[in-house]
Amino acid sequence: MKIVVHMDNARRWCAALERAFPHASVVTADAPEKVRQNADYLAVWKPPAWLLAEQTRLKGIVNLGAGVDALLATPGLPDGVPIVKLRDAGMAESMADYVLYGVLHFYRSFDAYARLQADARWAPQTVPAKAEWPVGVLGLGAIGAHVAQALSRAGFPVTGWSRTAKEIDGVDCHHGDAGLDAVLSRAQTLVTLLPDTDATRGLINAERLAQLPAGATLINPGRGALVDEAALLAALGNADQPGRLRGALLDVFTAEPLPCDSPLWDHPKVWITPHVSAPTPLDGAIDQVIDYLRAFEAGEPVSTVNPAAGY
Amino acid sequence: MKIVVHMDNARRWCAALERAFPHASVVTADAPEKVRQNADYLAVWKPPAWLLAEQTRLKGIVNLGAGVDALLATPGLPDGVPIVKLRDAGMAESMADYVLYGVLHFYRSFDAYARLQADARWAPQTVPAKAEWPVGVLGLGAIGAHVAQALSRAGFPVTGWSRTAKEIDGVDCHHGDAGLDAVLSRAQTLVTLLPDTDATRGLINAERLAQLPAGATLINPGRGALVDEAALLAALGNADQPGRLRGALLDVFTAEPLPCDSPLWDHPKVWITPHVSAPTPLDGAIDQVIDYLRAFEAGEPVSTVNPAAGY
Repeated sequence: MKIVVHMDNARRWCAALERAFPHASVVTADAPEKVRQNADYLAVWKPPAWLLAEQTRLKGIVNLGAGVDALLATPGLPDGVPIVKLRDAGMAESMADYVLYGVLHFYRSFDAYARLQADARWAPQTVPAKAEWPVGVLGLGAIGAHVAQALSRAGFPVTGWSRTAKEIDGVDCHHGDAGLDAVLSRAQTLVTLLPDTDATRGLINAERLAQLPAGATLINPGRGALVDEAALLAALGNADQPGRLRGALLDVFTAEPLPCDSPLWDHPKVWITPHVSAPTPLDGAIDQVIDYLRAFEAGEPVSTVNPAAGY
Repeated sequence: MKIVVHMDNARRWCAALERAFPHASVVTADAPEKVRQNADYLAVWKPPAWLLAEQTRLKGIVNLGAGVDALLATPGLPDGVPIVKLRDAGMAESMADYVLYGVLHFYRSFDAYARLQADARWAPQTVPAKAEWPVGVLGLGAIGAHVAQALSRAGFPVTGWSRTAKEIDGVDCHHGDAGLDAVLSRAQTLVTLLPDTDATRGLINAERLAQLPAGATLINPGRGALVDEAALLAALGNADQPGRLRGALLDVFTAEPLPCDSPLWDHPKVWITPHVSAPTPLDGAIDQVIDYLRAFEAGEPVSTVNPAAGY
């Protein structure tokens, strides 16, 4: 059995896989072409096209993250090879922490205090009851559902939205176009955790931003393509033309790294992080990879990605 | 029965007390002297000295907050009048949210990202495992204990410290001088939630700050007097002389409002909020005040403040 790993810290992954599969050949994508070809399995994050194209007898691909849009968009991806992706593995907790931080950032006026501090101004802001701060979560997959429940446990009313109907304890779930209207119209903070698909690309456009209440805030830790950045900038406004939105915490962008001339960088209502909302934690993730590979080898059923749906 | 209320939004408190005690006379401290004298009870937050001094037949004082240091330090406070203070009433949840925000601010490098954003720099920071980010909580009263448990539930190892020995689920509790050393020496984030007493004033001085690990962070949402501000500034350092501490989130100060010439305002490692970590929420608090007054009137035992201990 040959496994090729492509990931930032590939050597640590290789070492863990070698321990789990002592008879396997585990190599990184940096290995010479002959060594890395004819792999049985790829364990990869954003693999280069050539690595996919040169494989001849793949039995499975493990996507080392929850988002498969980068993998599915890579030319050379062979048809019909089963793809599995990491579930959670601590990513949902990381994501929930990030989103809870972001909701508190606006709800508790830390955004205002940062600006006030720059002027050495002491000006306590009113904190509404959490009941008056509904949070809308778009996307109720494993991570979105975890985030929605964490926000609900933290005391916020949470409305969730997904393509198909879902039921989640503590979350007021909606779906379909009418459901999206209902979530947007009441969200003091909107959290976008949808996958990047043809149906979600540019979903948060000028029209949908205008459905949010005045003073609403946006957190996008999902995919950069979900949000029309120009429309967001217009909705945030500027000194000459104040916008309806209060602020945005953005972790993902249509181009990454965010180009240094992007107007998002120095917009006073925008808080930027460099795609760090849910880093893949090694230990939890590696156990999943091992389980997937064992299941593939044993011919056991695994839940695979549907390339047509995009997730 | 006459009740005098002194509080920011005293009229809302008066209205609620009038509903609960329809036969009582409920007035604010703004009432004429004759009206506000001879009160049976005071329900007050930071009352003026004259309001205390002019009372002749007080049966009890309800402190409209958890911290009694301001009340106990007010000249004119009559001896022997039982003092009760608000427990929690949602303040513990507000405080836990504030502290969790602060811990995540440093743990997830939001402090670094704010500085990087100012330079339009995209530079993801490593996130250690939560197991490698112990949080020390000084003060394990009702609020400190709630905060410590919330941090523990969020996945952080929490060591707590109090004057007397305590046991709290999920929290590694210490007390006494040796206990303080143990908590300080391992805290990646130190949270100060002690009352302001002779024993705690200036507790976090240069020597104790030096016991923290290099790169440690401080959150002070408790009392301004707990922290020696000059020692903190020295430990944070400046461009010429970098300090050992990574940053501080401060909500309380030795002088409030923080004077506009304080060097804390524009220190790049300091995050300032204007004493907003645990605002008293009206609804939960008013129920407690009513319960206290009923217990006083019925001669039932209530847990009172010990002025000698200071809390």
